[in-house]
Amino acid sequence: MSIPVVVLGATGMVGQRALSLLKNHPWFDIAALAASERSAGKRYDEACRWHLPGEPWAGLGDRIVEACDADALTARLGRTGIALSALDAKPAKHIEKAFAEAGWAVVSNASAFRGDPSVPLVIPEVNADHLELVRTQNTKGFIVTNPNCTSMPLVIALKPILDAVGIEAVTVASYQAVSGAGYPGESAWDMLGNVRPHPGNEEEKVAAEPLKILGTFGEGGVTHASFPISARCVRAPVVDGHLVAVHVKTTQPITPEEATELFRSWAGGNLTTPTAPRPPIVVQAQRDRPSPRFDKDLGGGMAVSVGRIEACPVMGLKFFALAHNTVRGAAGAALLNAELLVDRGFVS
Amino acid sequence: MSIPVVVLGATGMVGQRALSLLKNHPWFDIAALAASERSAGKRYDEACRWHLPGEPWAGLGDRIVEACDADALTARLGRTGIALSALDAKPAKHIEKAFAEAGWAVVSNASAFRGDPSVPLVIPEVNADHLELVRTQNTKGFIVTNPNCTSMPLVIALKPILDAVGIEAVTVASYQAVSGAGYPGESAWDMLGNVRPHPGNEEEKVAAEPLKILGTFGEGGVTHASFPISARCVRAPVVDGHLVAVHVKTTQPITPEEATELFRSWAGGNLTTPTAPRPPIVVQAQRDRPSPRFDKDLGGGMAVSVGRIEACPVMGLKFFALAHNTVRGAAGAALLNAELLVDRGFVS
Amino acid sequence: MSIPVVVLGATGMVGQRALSLLKNHPWFDIAALAASERSAGKRYDEACRWHLPGEPWAGLGDRIVEACDADALTARLGRTGIALSALDAKPAKHIEKAFAEAGWAVVSNASAFRGDPSVPLVIPEVNADHLELVRTQNTKGFIVTNPNCTSMPLVIALKPILDAVGIEAVTVASYQAVSGAGYPGESAWDMLGNVRPHPGNEEEKVAAEPLKILGTFGEGGVTHASFPISARCVRAPVVDGHLVAVHVKTTQPITPEEATELFRSWAGGNLTTPTAPRPPIVVQAQRDRPSPRFDKDLGGGMAVSVGRIEACPVMGLKFFALAHNTVRGAAGAALLNAELLVDRGFVS
Amino acid sequence: MSIPVVVLGATGMVGQRALSLLKNHPWFDIAALAASERSAGKRYDEACRWHLPGEPWAGLGDRIVEACDADALTARLGRTGIALSALDAKPAKHIEKAFAEAGWAVVSNASAFRGDPSVPLVIPEVNADHLELVRTQNTKGFIVTNPNCTSMPLVIALKPILDAVGIEAVTVASYQAVSGAGYPGESAWDMLGNVRPHPGNEEEKVAAEPLKILGTFGEGGVTHASFPISARCVRAPVVDGHLVAVHVKTTQPITPEEATELFRSWAGGNLTTPTAPRPPIVVQAQRDRPSPRFDKDLGGGMAVSVGRIEACPVMGLKFFALAHNTVRGAAGAALLNAELLVDRGFVS
Repeated sequence: MSIPVVVLGATGMVGQRALSLLKNHPWFDIAALAASERSAGKRYDEACRWHLPGEPWAGLGDRIVEACDADALTARLGRTGIALSALDAKPAKHIEKAFAEAGWAVVSNASAFRGDPSVPLVIPEVNADHLELVRTQNTKGFIVTNPNCTSMPLVIALKPILDAVGIEAVTVASYQAVSGAGYPGESAWDMLGNVRPHPGNEEEKVAAEPLKILGTFGEGGVTHASFPISARCVRAPVVDGHLVAVHVKTTQPITPEEATELFRSWAGGNLTTPTAPRPPIVVQAQRDRPSPRFDKDLGGGMAVSVGRIEACPVMGLKFFALAHNTVRGAAGAALLNAELLVDRGFVS
Repeated sequence: MSIPVVVLGATGMVGQRALSLLKNHPWFDIAALAASERSAGKRYDEACRWHLPGEPWAGLGDRIVEACDADALTARLGRTGIALSALDAKPAKHIEKAFAEAGWAVVSNASAFRGDPSVPLVIPEVNADHLELVRTQNTKGFIVTNPNCTSMPLVIALKPILDAVGIEAVTVASYQAVSGAGYPGESAWDMLGNVRPHPGNEEEKVAAEPLKILGTFGEGGVTHASFPISARCVRAPVVDGHLVAVHVKTTQPITPEEATELFRSWAGGNLTTPTAPRPPIVVQAQRDRPSPRFDKDLGGGMAVSVGRIEACPVMGLKFFALAHNTVRGAAGAALLNAELLVDRGFVS
Repeated sequence: MSIPVVVLGATGMVGQRALSLLKNHPWFDIAALAASERSAGKRYDEACRWHLPGEPWAGLGDRIVEACDADALTARLGRTGIALSALDAKPAKHIEKAFAEAGWAVVSNASAFRGDPSVPLVIPEVNADHLELVRTQNTKGFIVTNPNCTSMPLVIALKPILDAVGIEAVTVASYQAVSGAGYPGESAWDMLGNVRPHPGNEEEKVAAEPLKILGTFGEGGVTHASFPISARCVRAPVVDGHLVAVHVKTTQPITPEEATELFRSWAGGNLTTPTAPRPPIVVQAQRDRPSPRFDKDLGGGMAVSVGRIEACPVMGLKFFALAHNTVRGAAGAALLNAELLVDRGFVS
Repeated sequence: MSIPVVVLGATGMVGQRALSLLKNHPWFDIAALAASERSAGKRYDEACRWHLPGEPWAGLGDRIVEACDADALTARLGRTGIALSALDAKPAKHIEKAFAEAGWAVVSNASAFRGDPSVPLVIPEVNADHLELVRTQNTKGFIVTNPNCTSMPLVIALKPILDAVGIEAVTVASYQAVSGAGYPGESAWDMLGNVRPHPGNEEEKVAAEPLKILGTFGEGGVTHASFPISARCVRAPVVDGHLVAVHVKTTQPITPEEATELFRSWAGGNLTTPTAPRPPIVVQAQRDRPSPRFDKDLGGGMAVSVGRIEACPVMGLKFFALAHNTVRGAAGAALLNAELLVDRGFVS
């Protein structure tokens, strides 16, 4: 199997992570590096500053960046395939649409279509069944999205709780890494020896996206979950890895020990695709964990770490969860969606 | 007026802050630098590593450190006065007791006696009336304590809310500076580019201390406030300044605009002593504030900054609050208690 | 005395420092806040993000930013005065020229005219006599510049050595704070837990500018000093304060003890203007000093700290020097030049 | 081949790195985890706090730590083998000696015996021939040492220069990571947003050790190289990776282009053992590289990165070099020495 994958937004922070994960992928082939008009036509290593360790490997750095032109790429490749989008929300709006119309399976990390009722917002371990939504899209191809990087550890940790005892309400405070802001992203002046409330609409995303993912798929599409989520999002001087402190009010009571066992035994749909972490949740025993620098790379950067699972006198249950924001929370999330599409026969 | 102040634990992080605040104080005179047996007899600048900008000033560095011996100090000075304690909890237990028994007014930053029913836990702007408790102590002098550094911004921000509309429950997540751990405190290895759940009993302190401070003083002592507080405490790579993200469930509804007005107009008992910040709460307008590096020094490090006052779909109200942890949350807190004691006639 | 000072580039990192230093200045009055066309016409607190502690003070935030238009400002004020330029090099080229032509005394932190043979490059403690150069400028007013922020601690520390025993060669490695890059400047992604060789022409500036400052003024202008300087410039995750490790080959031998005494006793021209630090050099005794976070603010941010003065088996003498890069190395440097101009009668 | 390796000081920062590198090693088997009496008898994961990502793997965490007792370990294992020492200098003095006397091949990262004329100080790519020195040790086994972590990138980069054109003098400034201080090592209070001159004897080590390694082995032992090295050592808030800025005065002139070619083509003895990096030196082309966070892991953490190779007006040549301080500069250095011993037939 060798399915062509075009990376849209290949020069940015998330695009580079996607390329690293696609290197040596057993199913996928990097068919094209696509980026803005400004980068198109240049060698990849001249079009971008490489943000990951070392330098772009031989066979990547010297490839020519192409424009995000669905028709031109389809023509050049002689076929469609998977378009992994690491674009910003604004250009994503029309470029992803154009790729879907040209017959591509778009797996997008952008926020542009996450709220669209016909577009599934999917975490493979959580709501793989939502993929069926793509059949309601009136295009030759389709778009599948993954959530915001801060929602990722939250939703994965909430899913086993929701299934076992129900959820009435959630409050969450985040400790977010600077890579979540892209490059150049946060100013070093603002972040050195400092933390800062996120000035954007991150808190709104964290309040809304989990409810769609944790919703139920049926005749009329996805019925969103209905409990309220209240988030405080804060950027911290951390390189990679978003930590969240979560308080949950459950429908039926649950002890910390029971919650711990739920996290430990959760199979997340028993995924067997190449990038799926096994297990999807790693429970940490030390009192000062999870901690981003030490735990972000567990499961190849795809596992969610959970720790300090304790009784909360206000909400009932509380714990910390952590995920690598540009792997599990972005590039790896899109890639896992791509693998799921292949596994479930939506792409071949 | 020149009241002698002995600084107990003068060589540590909080002791050094206390000395800085006492320099040029209009009411107080640094009568002695007291520390452990290991330091006693040495010059101050040889007994400790100075952690604040520059070097110990002339007249401080060359003073001789004395032992924390209440009787010896009383004898040498020919009188008692105020003992400002920056000791660790363990030595505080017997040393503070000894000073109280010798007739000193002990204003302590240590946790040793905070839970003692006869010892007032006081933030002057919040519960100055609790000072009366000292009359129930069976010693010639007495002990007054201030709360943990993380409780400080929380309690000050909760007080106007409590008085206006009542409080049913609180959840809080902290972003704590490394100076809160003293020196050498946190390892650079653990903290560079990282955040870490606090492994100690910080969350228990934050759950308990505010209820005593916000309690009511009456015949039988202090009746603690009774709403639950659930805290998540996390150390961040910040030098000074503890930020807290607070969610509050109020008894009667309150809009963010009303809460903002409460914070702005709160007089905190109209204190007029030298170290009292005016106003005690500074409301920040920018979406990414308060932020420790930029706001910790407002009001000479004694003001609490509050910002992002918004509606919370789960608890009702949410906001961020910030205080300088070694000034407002420690050395300055003890000093303000000392000033209050003078102002109210407990010390002269 | 109240001389009007217009701050050019008032909204940037250095401009904000300049305004802070001008607040309550005994000689100068902030006559106008000038910035780019994009900012002109806006309230100051809306035109810029304030980067210093707290918020712009009352009377600053609500002032209206004006364009950097020399004629318009002269007309509005009804006179000329001092233009303190915190502009970037490119706009400085024509704006500073225009102000000089309109009769203003321009004290510039920009690099645009530093190399111009008719423009003095001045550190008041080092080469105040070079001011005479301004008489060779064919404009109604004139331009005076201060050096690059990394050259500042280097030159001040070299001056007493040069005068006493002569200098044959210098190698220097820098540890530069992120504020030197302005705002947003360095990306947090690049700087967290990292150091990085300066990619710009910083090393060239450090090799060239000291030679002009340490040159001799005579009939034909400034004869530059002629020893070679080889610099390695590296950005470190430090907020403010540039540290330099200096190796000096002297013409005549000098012991570390003699060098220490030279630094300690150096009077730097015995300046008595308001911003001049006394003494200009502070010698540090601890082995791990000077260190930016602890020593940058000595002398109100205007003193240079020197430490670890030792014999060098290769060059003869080595030491560390430190200066606050946006105060001593930028805004304060320009302000001190302005004070010198008044003190020497070039401005009144 | 499966040679037993005992890790001495297995619970510390360097010991943990050593264990990580020994996991799945094709030649070596982790025969024992040895540490101080305090740790002996405990499970490994209880005896130490794990400092590397994730947690100790299955089969490591549950092993029992043993005392550093050469005779007991020899008896238990029924044979001798390699003792990889990650001990501190003080305990190393007698423990390493005891292991050598008991017949073990000790490869030590400690400084205790580096200066001993009968103990080779070896970097395999540089002076493998010095191993012969062990035949002069009057013990059944022997001790081989590797240099200080800051000397490592310096010596590897100097070797090709020395061989090609000779060296007259070197000045070097370091930017050292906090992991070099072990755990807890540097205080977060000292290092956040700060750099600090190394208060220990690091500069003396960097001046002395390279001369032994770059010396020549002959009848009477090692004749040290004789050029002077002057170092300034500074700790920076970097997690892992020591950067050095090097100025070299060569005997014969060399251009930056020639030096670049020397670095690129240097084979370092054409080592083929499992841990040997190929190539040993990676030349970086970007102007802001090498940079620790991005380049420390090249060649599995064993390659030295060199960049910004330029003419120096004072010394002739200058460049930056970087090595991972706890891999290439410590645990990996000892391991590579162990592999060399096997490869050259000193151990079997």
